Amino acid sequence: MLTKSDIETKIKKGRDMIRFDYDDANDDYKSDQDLKLPQPPLVKADMCDESIPLPTDFSSLDTTVNFTELLINRKSSRVYTEENISLLELSYILWSIQGIKDIRGKKYATIRTVPSGGARHPFETYMIIKHVEGLKPGKYHYLPWGHRIEYLGEIEDIDKMIDKTIAGQTWAVKSSVVFYFSAVFYRSEWRYGINAHRPMLFDMGHVGENLYLSATLLHLGTCASAAFEGQLCNELFGLDGEEETMMYSQTLGTISKTDNTKEQAFYQFVEDEGL
Amino acid sequence: MLTKSDIETKIKKGRDMIRFDYDDANDDYKSDQDLKLPQPPLVKADMCDESIPLPTDFSSLDTTVNFTELLINRKSSRVYTEENISLLELSYILWSIQGIKDIRGKKYATIRTVPSGGARHPFETYMIIKHVEGLKPGKYHYLPWGHRIEYLGEIEDIDKMIDKTIAGQTWAVKSSVVFYFSAVFYRSEWRYGINAHRPMLFDMGHVGENLYLSATLLHLGTCASAAFEGQLCNELFGLDGEEETMMYSQTLGTISKTDNTKEQAFYQFVEDEGL
Repeated sequence: MLTKSDIETKIKKGRDMIRFDYDDANDDYKSDQDLKLPQPPLVKADMCDESIPLPTDFSSLDTTVNFTELLINRKSSRVYTEENISLLELSYILWSIQGIKDIRGKKYATIRTVPSGGARHPFETYMIIKHVEGLKPGKYHYLPWGHRIEYLGEIEDIDKMIDKTIAGQTWAVKSSVVFYFSAVFYRSEWRYGINAHRPMLFDMGHVGENLYLSATLLHLGTCASAAFEGQLCNELFGLDGEEETMMYSQTLGTISKTDNTKEQAFYQFVEDEGL
Repeated sequence: MLTKSDIETKIKKGRDMIRFDYDDANDDYKSDQDLKLPQPPLVKADMCDESIPLPTDFSSLDTTVNFTELLINRKSSRVYTEENISLLELSYILWSIQGIKDIRGKKYATIRTVPSGGARHPFETYMIIKHVEGLKPGKYHYLPWGHRIEYLGEIEDIDKMIDKTIAGQTWAVKSSVVFYFSAVFYRSEWRYGINAHRPMLFDMGHVGENLYLSATLLHLGTCASAAFEGQLCNELFGLDGEEETMMYSQTLGTISKTDNTKEQAFYQFVEDEGL
């Protein structure tokens, strides 16, 4: 049970995370890049011996859209019909959220489909896949070099694992794919040091918004979740929680227009309470 | 001058901001919404007596796009040609980043063009406008109700103010519009209390990404900046820094393809250092 003072301290700490004032006193601070230390890899190395190439010919997908309508149609969906997503659809979504478009310098930075401060792109993308055409259910890791995924292994009770990792938001169990994004701290810290972390949170939002938009484009449903069991996610994907740690999650599933009533049930309290 | 221990403490604090583990111990915590306290307004009240309605007929804008190409073309631009943006273009961009699509309940939540945890939308949008057709230079505030803006007054030395607020990133001075986004804490805290703040940072990223994409759609240039002088921004727009505080900024300007070389100069160090 939190005391009133505990709550005030937490609120203050939260507010301080959002506040920002550029501090001239840090102008003489030197990051590891300033100190000419070698930079870390731009992506995490393959975790397995084998990887699965993703299709890159998107021409059979209908990607021409009125952007105004895309924004109007963009919403959070929590009722999924548990159908298969095609491998091409998954490929497109992975490309739209973390795909590499170009390289800056010899190996200085990846230029990707999302903006990231200093082009650091300090994220890795993991997935629990349940319903993707041609893929066995289990845990996966996205490899942006070469646009591939790798199969990290099966999960004994996949529904229970989704439910537990997404902090008991049971609707997530019917996702076709659950995305788990990690932060690889030093990839940003090498360049920005003590100033690396706040921008990473905004940058993660860029990823989340592209996932919303590409899912909407493909008539799929998605919902971001800032609540999850970080430690359990770290164990699941073998992250040490120190240099790399779980940061954000988002579901993806097939949807049906006839499920609108079920979607609205998530906000029944608004009517019940006359809000 | 920061000591080694200062730096380690700051790095640890930054990393802790990104880490998350759902804490069951907070399950019995009650937010003000749980306690049935009245909710705060969904938008900030008009700050002035008069407001300027924004055009809402977007049919003359070319908003049909291949989403793949939009993501390929999306980039940060820091070299601006200081031409006028049309009021319709500004209107479209404001709509795409904070526009209200619908209301949930009687006045429970606004549903907007960006996703926000619990549809709290705890942001306000301010601008320094330099080059928008029909608008005098100065400071402005966006009013999402009725899709309007209000003129908050002139700025004595507008270039100096942009330069100083964006922490000396002088390229920003040639923007047509600089967006300054604030956080109105209690709008989220009412619902989420101690858990309100981390999701706000992701949600701000959703806004930033929509600004990137709608600017790209309209062939305009934009660049996010997580570095700014928070206190000066707060003074400029009359924010108390306690209940409402500056959180994020992003420039918008006209661009020319022939300026690619000047853009690349921002990354000359990559070649110089053989990175």
